[in-house]
Amino acid sequence: MKIDVLSLFPEMFAGVFGHSILKKASEAGAASYNVVNFREYADNKHQTVDDYPYGGGAGMVLKPQPIFDAVSDIKSKSDANPRVILLCPQGERFTQKKAEELAESEHLIFICGHYEGYDERIREHIVTDEISIGDYVLTGGELGAMVVIDSVVRLLPNVLGNQESHMKDSFSTGMLEHPHYTRPADFRGLKVPDVLTSGNHLHIEQWRQRESLKRTYQRRPDLLEQIDLTDEERNWLEEIKKEQI
Amino acid sequence: MKIDVLSLFPEMFAGVFGHSILKKASEAGAASYNVVNFREYADNKHQTVDDYPYGGGAGMVLKPQPIFDAVSDIKSKSDANPRVILLCPQGERFTQKKAEELAESEHLIFICGHYEGYDERIREHIVTDEISIGDYVLTGGELGAMVVIDSVVRLLPNVLGNQESHMKDSFSTGMLEHPHYTRPADFRGLKVPDVLTSGNHLHIEQWRQRESLKRTYQRRPDLLEQIDLTDEERNWLEEIKKEQI
Repeated sequence: MKIDVLSLFPEMFAGVFGHSILKKASEAGAASYNVVNFREYADNKHQTVDDYPYGGGAGMVLKPQPIFDAVSDIKSKSDANPRVILLCPQGERFTQKKAEELAESEHLIFICGHYEGYDERIREHIVTDEISIGDYVLTGGELGAMVVIDSVVRLLPNVLGNQESHMKDSFSTGMLEHPHYTRPADFRGLKVPDVLTSGNHLHIEQWRQRESLKRTYQRRPDLLEQIDLTDEERNWLEEIKKEQI
Repeated sequence: MKIDVLSLFPEMFAGVFGHSILKKASEAGAASYNVVNFREYADNKHQTVDDYPYGGGAGMVLKPQPIFDAVSDIKSKSDANPRVILLCPQGERFTQKKAEELAESEHLIFICGHYEGYDERIREHIVTDEISIGDYVLTGGELGAMVVIDSVVRLLPNVLGNQESHMKDSFSTGMLEHPHYTRPADFRGLKVPDVLTSGNHLHIEQWRQRESLKRTYQRRPDLLEQIDLTDEERNWLEEIKKEQI
């Protein structure tokens, strides 16, 4: 997968692209990253990328020209038909399903604004996907792009090693994960639940499923509405509800 | 505000802490960052930080000892009573309201796992806040910590300059932002709406409010349920609904 990022702060990306999974993916040839400062595409003498908004008001707006020309240049060198993703609070909320969808693409282009708004013509004529990573305000689109890229690249073939891929991810089962414990069984007086050291694999599996259900009920009941529970899980849920009272 | 981050990949943070708002905040004395590799606190010969899960199963679990001791050491040097934040998919979903709440603290400690799960005793006995930045799977807690830190630090006094602070943030009004346009009025045949170049400020303000309402209705109708609309807004909404048919 080819990944291009348009940003006025390209230096922000080195630490994240140069370590962990994203580095491994690049070394394995599964993904390549290119960060472009779109100021270099500004066709005016002072390399201005933003300007005052029509209709007045405070705050600056990113001009269409530098971003149109940067995306056009990147596309002209691409064999694929790239998705062009704008990070912004008005976008669709990012989900694991969207990550899986983007992981099917050969080429992604990310546009990151910073403080400024985007001229609407960028949205209407270049962008294929507007994404928001959550209902909070960030300084720019850079962190959003890193989040989307991390979640997408780890889904590519041959990127995750054995250790990572075998973790039961939250959201992939539709419920939150059960609690985990490791040695020592007694850490400064804090003990591991007996069942986990019992050696009874059936009981362990039941405990984990029930705890996963309990945690989901307590913290994210909205997720339960989207799952078909088994008879056993429905019984557990009744018990858990009574325990809460 | 003092910010400590516990991570096995401290190098990931340099690019983000060293630029933009987070750098400005540090230079202004509003925030200071310290990234600690908690492997340095492991009391075993090989500096192991994770181990196999009790009860079996694939995937590793972060041991309690290194994280307990790292947090304890940081707390012993703090005058404040730090919030200890764990980034994980099981946490409460991060919102702008939570960012505002955290911005009131003097000292935040972030714990970032990577691939592994956390031993439950860390959650129960050290952590004050479990946070998830969204319903998607990331390789580690590092990007989540950066997102939370960016959203919190920009709220601290004297951090945002004039330009940035005057942007009407989405979520602060409860609705998504209206479209923005800047020069040129005709960019390669793509034109700015006439009202914005009319000079009629009342019409411009009405257009913006209506577009903001329209965009929120089209993209995030859930947000409208939490707002008391004015009579004018309710009329616009009826018109907008008819336009959609």
